[in-house]
Amino acid sequence: SSSTTPIKATLFPGDGIGPEIAESVKQVFTAADVAIDWDEHFVGTEVDPRTNSFLTWESLQSVLKHKVGLKGPMATPIGKGHRSLNLTLRKELNLYANVRPCYSLPGYKTRYDDVDLITIRENTEGEYSGLEHQVVKGVVESIKIITRKASMRVAEYAFLYAKTHGRKKVSAIHKANIMQKTDGLFLQCCDEVARKYPDIEYEKVVIDNCCMMLVKNPALFDVLVMPNLYGDIISDLCAGLVGGLGLTPSCNIGEDGIALAEAVHGSAPDIAGKNLANPTALLLSGVMMLRHLKLNKQAEQIHSAIINTIAEGKYRTADLGGTSTTTDFTKAICDHL
Amino acid sequence: SSSTTPIKATLFPGDGIGPEIAESVKQVFTAADVAIDWDEHFVGTEVDPRTNSFLTWESLQSVLKHKVGLKGPMATPIGKGHRSLNLTLRKELNLYANVRPCYSLPGYKTRYDDVDLITIRENTEGEYSGLEHQVVKGVVESIKIITRKASMRVAEYAFLYAKTHGRKKVSAIHKANIMQKTDGLFLQCCDEVARKYPDIEYEKVVIDNCCMMLVKNPALFDVLVMPNLYGDIISDLCAGLVGGLGLTPSCNIGEDGIALAEAVHGSAPDIAGKNLANPTALLLSGVMMLRHLKLNKQAEQIHSAIINTIAEGKYRTADLGGTSTTTDFTKAICDHL
Ligand SMILES: CC(C)[C@H](C(=O)O)[C@@H](O)C(=O)O
Ligand SMILES: CC(C)[C@H](C(=O)O)[C@@H](O)C(=O)O
Repeated sequence: SSSTTPIKATLFPGDGIGPEIAESVKQVFTAADVAIDWDEHFVGTEVDPRTNSFLTWESLQSVLKHKVGLKGPMATPIGKGHRSLNLTLRKELNLYANVRPCYSLPGYKTRYDDVDLITIRENTEGEYSGLEHQVVKGVVESIKIITRKASMRVAEYAFLYAKTHGRKKVSAIHKANIMQKTDGLFLQCCDEVARKYPDIEYEKVVIDNCCMMLVKNPALFDVLVMPNLYGDIISDLCAGLVGGLGLTPSCNIGEDGIALAEAVHGSAPDIAGKNLANPTALLLSGVMMLRHLKLNKQAEQIHSAIINTIAEGKYRTADLGGTSTTTDFTKAICDHL
Repeated sequence: SSSTTPIKATLFPGDGIGPEIAESVKQVFTAADVAIDWDEHFVGTEVDPRTNSFLTWESLQSVLKHKVGLKGPMATPIGKGHRSLNLTLRKELNLYANVRPCYSLPGYKTRYDDVDLITIRENTEGEYSGLEHQVVKGVVESIKIITRKASMRVAEYAFLYAKTHGRKKVSAIHKANIMQKTDGLFLQCCDEVARKYPDIEYEKVVIDNCCMMLVKNPALFDVLVMPNLYGDIISDLCAGLVGGLGLTPSCNIGEDGIALAEAVHGSAPDIAGKNLANPTALLLSGVMMLRHLKLNKQAEQIHSAIINTIAEGKYRTADLGGTSTTTDFTKAICDHL
């Protein structure tokens, strides 16, 4: 068993299937001798006035303190007057870049082979400003905000990511032919950062054309960086190419080295508590967290065990066309370690 | 040859490859004995102050008078102070719904079989309001406008289209979980119209999820209706499923029964004048125009001739992997009539 002092990390199991898939991560990490000491926080049952959401103040403090965490799905409770939990986390913790790798899983067949894309999404502003109002009856406005600050830091992150991960190209995705000022500013920032990385190919692609080309030939792209809503759309599109959000990890990057890895699929209340959930997205997000912590050996071990289990095809959850329970699938991964 | 009085229709050949593909349409229509008397208008070489664009006032009047037209690609000249030609047309002519059918072309293989989708895009407002400003240095805003009026008329159009074309389902695409007021109003209008069509299935789908599901299984969808930018994105994505914008037609619907069919691909200046362009999108748009004019017999004849020529595979332009010229491909279609 591991000899290093355990690293403290926040764990948000989340709602619905969250606790079951979080349990799977704990088991796999333990089996792989990963020394993580989880500081577990649940979504509250009442609005915490200090966060104006069902997230507790203590849970946010936990991430700020440990600077690393893993998050399952959170369903924002229906009702008015409190914010989406996912957005609260992103905004309160200033998680400015959302990194979503999408790669074909060997052995899990879709219409596409060898997809290998990294979507880097600005995560704090844009169409998610929350600024909306009625002008007159029947006329409403939403305001999209783009700032130089947020655009620069996500562009910097994207190029640094490309460089440190041996990636060849960064594509900035935009609709600056229509939104010349907002998307124009975003592109200006990308241009500026690109000049500092002459070894990395750089291109600008209009979002509509990008979606068409992704569907026709995803191999045209490598790292994609873009404003918030385009990132929301394109990361889901890319996930669809390789099988869906049940298979794709993500990690939110904040300032001061904060990283909150996150399964971005839903909480699937219909199958919650039934031992049917697929923990793959949360497991792969956990792997991203381990890589962030430079626990590369264990990250690769766990990654291979997940991939091999899926490729072998003997244990698969229902969403992948199998009949395995969450616990059987988890056990199979542990056996592959 | 045809015995009916020719119907007057506006023709905008457009820029780049536009004139060549417009010539192809004229030849095919003539070969099919379609009695259209084209009122041809070109993009001006100077800004017309009455339209504040390179489109002439006379060309807009022509569409308003004949109420029907066909449009090739128009490249907005680089420079400041005048508007995109495409947007000028949509706004000045109040072309409120953009209908983009996407269907697999028999004989032209992509990763997807039997795609059969209709995207109906709100075409006048939303993110295309043109309202943008700098708040302070480094902070810019774009304003998205959603009105009850425009949302109702596009929703009405979508359900009427579904009903008159024997379609089973309408999906309203939105991001109302984030833009509760704007996309919320759009959905409210769709809900309201849906209640008048109890025989048509109705669902609401968040845009990110829609893109993922389109890529995984396009057969889940039938008619899709949505605000402007989502329509821009999703119609290109759908075109990608069946081979790209070179193969997909579109038609803009305005008030007072105006219809302007349009090839939405670019003007491809690199191959302009070389007899290499693929006229399929403009031809299929021409077919949509004929259907609008209730010239169904000729529409179906031309449609079959196009499909059969592509399926036969002997004459294909370079973009479809062939070596035919525009004129050879056009002649082949005429021979199939
Ligand atoms: C749940 C929703 C608010 C969220 C988003 O729009 O960002 C989700 O789609 C995501 O991608 O994490
Ligand atoms: C050229 C551009 C302004 C246009 C749009 O964004 O609507 C195009 O992409 C389209 O779909 O017709």
